[in-house]
Amino acid sequence: MNPRNDERTTVETLKQEVLAFAKARDWEQFHSPKNLSMAIAAEAAELMEPLLWVTPEESRAAMTRPAKREALQDELADIVVYCLEFANQTDIDLTSAIRTKMARNAEKYPVDKARGRSEKYNEL
Amino acid sequence: MNPRNDERTTVETLKQEVLAFAKARDWEQFHSPKNLSMAIAAEAAELMEPLLWVTPEESRAAMTRPAKREALQDELADIVVYCLEFANQTDIDLTSAIRTKMARNAEKYPVDKARGRSEKYNEL
Amino acid sequence: MNPRNDERTTVETLKQEVLAFAKARDWEQFHSPKNLSMAIAAEAAELMEPLLWVTPEESRAAMTRPAKREALQDELADIVVYCLEFANQTDIDLTSAIRTKMARNAEKYPVDKARGRSEKYNEL
Amino acid sequence: MNPRNDERTTVETLKQEVLAFAKARDWEQFHSPKNLSMAIAAEAAELMEPLLWVTPEESRAAMTRPAKREALQDELADIVVYCLEFANQTDIDLTSAIRTKMARNAEKYPVDKARGRSEKYNEL
Repeated sequence: MNPRNDERTTVETLKQEVLAFAKARDWEQFHSPKNLSMAIAAEAAELMEPLLWVTPEESRAAMTRPAKREALQDELADIVVYCLEFANQTDIDLTSAIRTKMARNAEKYPVDKARGRSEKYNEL
Repeated sequence: MNPRNDERTTVETLKQEVLAFAKARDWEQFHSPKNLSMAIAAEAAELMEPLLWVTPEESRAAMTRPAKREALQDELADIVVYCLEFANQTDIDLTSAIRTKMARNAEKYPVDKARGRSEKYNEL
Repeated sequence: MNPRNDERTTVETLKQEVLAFAKARDWEQFHSPKNLSMAIAAEAAELMEPLLWVTPEESRAAMTRPAKREALQDELADIVVYCLEFANQTDIDLTSAIRTKMARNAEKYPVDKARGRSEKYNEL
Repeated sequence: MNPRNDERTTVETLKQEVLAFAKARDWEQFHSPKNLSMAIAAEAAELMEPLLWVTPEESRAAMTRPAKREALQDELADIVVYCLEFANQTDIDLTSAIRTKMARNAEKYPVDKARGRSEKYNEL
């Protein structure tokens, strides 16, 4: 396993890189919340596309094949880039949004009730 | 505007927080690439849902209304949480994937050709 | 405008044509509700893809350009084919499902309250 | 099994029912191709939502539980309603689009090569 120095990048830095890319191309005019939400959904579908007909187990195995892996990595990146840009354009503190949501999820899914179960909280 | 210290969190830290949440609930068994790709797409659709019938301009205005804003912030968080977990489960270096993809996009969309235009690279 | 004899085809007939295609290829084994729901969502995203950055008005105009129109027509067909196959595999009477849902929508969105408004029923 | 008289309804009739619903509420102004493509994708995600964490096999079993079945039936109806309205608003002959697409698919996936296989045509 490599040291993953890249992942020590902050969310702030990534947001700025994505914003600079958009600004340089004068693309902010297209980056309304509506349009970006569509772009995120469109990219999410591309992540699903190679996984439509395999079983969940087979999808784990697929990630060990370099070509498949690289394709999925690209699609995942596309989704996150648009999420970062959504946060940029709407001035959302993404980290704080994530932590707020996870805290709420921790209440909805207490460890002792949710362990090993995939049901929705209202079915637990 | 607050100082946004949260966004100085690293991607690595966020990934670990998401992974800890899943591990504590023994949920990794459900987190195959196939299932996570569906979850990302399902959450992406929830981000779109309040924006279906408004114009792009109206969608910018919608973000100034606190209730709408908070709802969309939650949905954005959900998407990114699942993206981080996808990266966790598949051992993808998300930052590196993002930078690789953006470098390729920079070639496909050179500033002078792409400025102010929303066409796909093969239509520029 | 041509007489549209094709649209006088029944839902039953279309369902059978789609089922025969799947049976001939021994594809029903892949057509679980989970997989088909993913396929529908993936195709839906392809319908969105050429419309990401245009305004709603521009998207109406786009349909007058033959190449764009044909592409979108193909994507729409893909979605409906998988919907018909979902109905086949789960033995859903699609017409009846549509009418039941529209009757419920008619109650949620009474003409006098909903006219000219795009809000959700709980905001009307 | 009941006689399914409903499925002997023509696509034309269903399109007209959906159009009448929209016209009565003066909703055609919202029904641009862009907005409808988003609505289709949003509904498609709702069809996926109850199937995220189950295996494909479990998703077949889920359809035998009346509450789950009814929910999925409603979501499938929502998708097809918006597809019919997309065809209405863009003057697409849906049946003809479906048959054109299936004929092309039949060439891409000849029975002898595609039988029992879920790979994409370019991988067969």
